Amino acid sequence: MKKQLLSGLSAFVLSGAIIATTQASLSNEDQIKTRQSAYQFAAWNMGKIKAQVIDGTVEFNQAQVQAAANAIAAVANSGMGALYAPGTDKGTGWKKTRLKSEFFEQPERVREVAIGFMTAANELQKVAETGDKDAIARQFGTVGQSCKACHDDFRGR
Amino acid sequence: MKKQLLSGLSAFVLSGAIIATTQASLSNEDQIKTRQSAYQFAAWNMGKIKAQVIDGTVEFNQAQVQAAANAIAAVANSGMGALYAPGTDKGTGWKKTRLKSEFFEQPERVREVAIGFMTAANELQKVAETGDKDAIARQFGTVGQSCKACHDDFRGR
Repeated sequence: MKKQLLSGLSAFVLSGAIIATTQASLSNEDQIKTRQSAYQFAAWNMGKIKAQVIDGTVEFNQAQVQAAANAIAAVANSGMGALYAPGTDKGTGWKKTRLKSEFFEQPERVREVAIGFMTAANELQKVAETGDKDAIARQFGTVGQSCKACHDDFRGR
Repeated sequence: MKKQLLSGLSAFVLSGAIIATTQASLSNEDQIKTRQSAYQFAAWNMGKIKAQVIDGTVEFNQAQVQAAANAIAAVANSGMGALYAPGTDKGTGWKKTRLKSEFFEQPERVREVAIGFMTAANELQKVAETGDKDAIARQFGTVGQSCKACHDDFRGR
């Protein structure tokens, strides 16, 4: 788990290099489309956990919660930084991007929210393994806060 | 790994039940949008592995390949069956769905291709851990074949 976290952090910190190597194949529009897809996929999995451990509208199933937590962690650790080339605050993927230009002006804050998401998601993946519903609910809240931190600062209306 | 595979298979086999519990919250359009997102996210990660172990256009980095393999496995194990409610062969998510109506007429074949994808993706995740580039390349091919099996039978032009 520790190793995975470090890999994830490295992937983001090295995102400059990743951008350099993938820009040839991914247009700005494809970068926007792909990050919109990744967050849609993550949101679906957040929704499954919410239904089972917060709302109680779906019966708790540890295997499903674990699979959902794995999916959220996989998004967090996938090197999303490569999908944020300069200029991608303008453009349309599946829909018009809502990324604020501040994203490119505040790299320290970006790194902070990115590491926050990765750390929270990796911990959720770990807690899901225990099957402790209350602990999962608490950590789910922490992941949600890490999503919100980025939305508040870098996502427009 | 074994446990994860079984969880994934169970999630798919139980997809009827999952559909029943999630239909209330996910419209057909949202199901289509979410599955398009999941496959877009998986394809991005397939592309990263291809660039590093097949094409050699990006330097091999085991941590990045592992993260990409984790992402593909996470999609495969996420209970995608819940996003294929009857009727979702018509409709528009991010774009018009290409799902053929045959999907709902051949449940045995659907289960076969779904299990094929999960098995191949879980094995890729395992092989990525070894860092053996040739073995990863071979298993990447097997995952690609498992994608193609579903496209050939159930995806229109």
